[in-house]
Amino acid sequence: MRLVTSPTDIKEVTERYHLRHLTVGLVPTMGWFHEGHLSLMRMARKNADKVIVSLFVNPIQFGPNEDLDSYPYDLERDSRLAEGEGVDILFAPEKNAMYPKNFGSTVSVTGLTSQLCGSSRPGHFDGVTTVVAKLFNLTRPHSAIFGEKDYQQLAVIKKMVRDLDFPIKILGHPIVREKSGLAMSSRNSYLEKGEMDAALSLFRSIQKAREFVSKRSAEDVDAAQIKSLVHNVINFHRECEIDYIKVVNDTTLEDCHKITKNSLLVLAVKINNRIRLIDNSILKGS
Amino acid sequence: MRLVTSPTDIKEVTERYHLRHLTVGLVPTMGWFHEGHLSLMRMARKNADKVIVSLFVNPIQFGPNEDLDSYPYDLERDSRLAEGEGVDILFAPEKNAMYPKNFGSTVSVTGLTSQLCGSSRPGHFDGVTTVVAKLFNLTRPHSAIFGEKDYQQLAVIKKMVRDLDFPIKILGHPIVREKSGLAMSSRNSYLEKGEMDAALSLFRSIQKAREFVSKRSAEDVDAAQIKSLVHNVINFHRECEIDYIKVVNDTTLEDCHKITKNSLLVLAVKINNRIRLIDNSILKGS
Repeated sequence: MRLVTSPTDIKEVTERYHLRHLTVGLVPTMGWFHEGHLSLMRMARKNADKVIVSLFVNPIQFGPNEDLDSYPYDLERDSRLAEGEGVDILFAPEKNAMYPKNFGSTVSVTGLTSQLCGSSRPGHFDGVTTVVAKLFNLTRPHSAIFGEKDYQQLAVIKKMVRDLDFPIKILGHPIVREKSGLAMSSRNSYLEKGEMDAALSLFRSIQKAREFVSKRSAEDVDAAQIKSLVHNVINFHRECEIDYIKVVNDTTLEDCHKITKNSLLVLAVKINNRIRLIDNSILKGS
Repeated sequence: MRLVTSPTDIKEVTERYHLRHLTVGLVPTMGWFHEGHLSLMRMARKNADKVIVSLFVNPIQFGPNEDLDSYPYDLERDSRLAEGEGVDILFAPEKNAMYPKNFGSTVSVTGLTSQLCGSSRPGHFDGVTTVVAKLFNLTRPHSAIFGEKDYQQLAVIKKMVRDLDFPIKILGHPIVREKSGLAMSSRNSYLEKGEMDAALSLFRSIQKAREFVSKRSAEDVDAAQIKSLVHNVINFHRECEIDYIKVVNDTTLEDCHKITKNSLLVLAVKINNRIRLIDNSILKGS
């Protein structure tokens, strides 16, 4: 595996791949790899001749009071893990190489970005789409893999790719969970022992909601019933502050009122006002 | 020459070019070709194996009270002219193919877009950068050619390409003028006979300004002197309403106070409140 840190170098690498007619799979990440990331790398491996993993803690997708400065980072550890998955290139650019002085372009998607995380984290998705557009142009992948844990991010990227005609196939990878059910996230590293039970309430509430739906004819269930059920499970933990609990259409991300096979339960919860966790699940079927 | 109207088809064409290792030169236009456009096509021809000319009157770069509906259009005429220049592909998509229902992504550049035409035409440059990003992704050119008449547009595209890492070389082509000196523009077709003298005042004022500078040590000339000189030449014509007369740095587009070799005179003038013409020139040297 080769470590590349300069945008100019990665352009040359991908140019050579193209000249050799090799397909490229990109996995954009912010590092501190866990099994979720490694699954994305394996999925990329299956879909392309060469796998590029980008590791960049993208400052412009963090709000002023968010965890940019404390975001976990260990390039050596992550290099080892990526190499273990047969990744060809780990692209880990410096902040100033990605956003030099006088940088001033933005890619933004409307329609999917104002609700959910977009409403709690203003500007977040502009930061995501801008950096992803840059990564797409630098690595010119044939496919790019994103985790479904950040479901809204995946939907926004798909819309950007469709709207702006990027010649790239976007693949989503199902959420990877700990044995306990906790959705894997680099931010789980912030959790202290005593906070685990509260953190698990997201998954437990999803399980309860799915059970509730599975026992009924889905069309008879109101989103309001689901939200109230989930609310009660999470609110039981005084460490939890609910950011949002929503039931939305899995394509438009607009609120559902009746449950259908396209209804997605999406959650964002802050643990002890320090750690913001998200999770989601389709309510009916697998 | 092949006429392509579907975004899916143009993607296939460019994919085949890439597989054959052919370089592509793109000339983005809004059609109604004149010698200016044809020069861009010839420049593209010199720089690439295959030349793609796009012809698309991009609705999102027009303001609500602008000339979108009257913009001249004749695909047959333009096809003939492009074919005469050895263009390989004329890409002329429908509006709905470029902006399908639920379209909602924007590429925007800050810092160069608030002044000059950006201030007279709010949203204009977002429309330009969005459609050009789409055209870049659809045709994946190695080089793209833009005329220097739309100087600010060229500067904005260069910034977008640098900021977002498009692997594309942007080339500017000098302004092509009628024998009279009038900068060629599709909008000149709106001019009536009696308006030609007023339209020519832009070029004449540029000539006077350059003469004024050439007779002096440039550093001794104030931008204010130039602007007042130009103002007088243009204002002499009662058909002319000045939108802006500015002397700016040719890279940053920020106001200059003293004239240097990087000082650019930029003009926008409305003729009889119907026809908006622009022109520009470096003040010192060629």
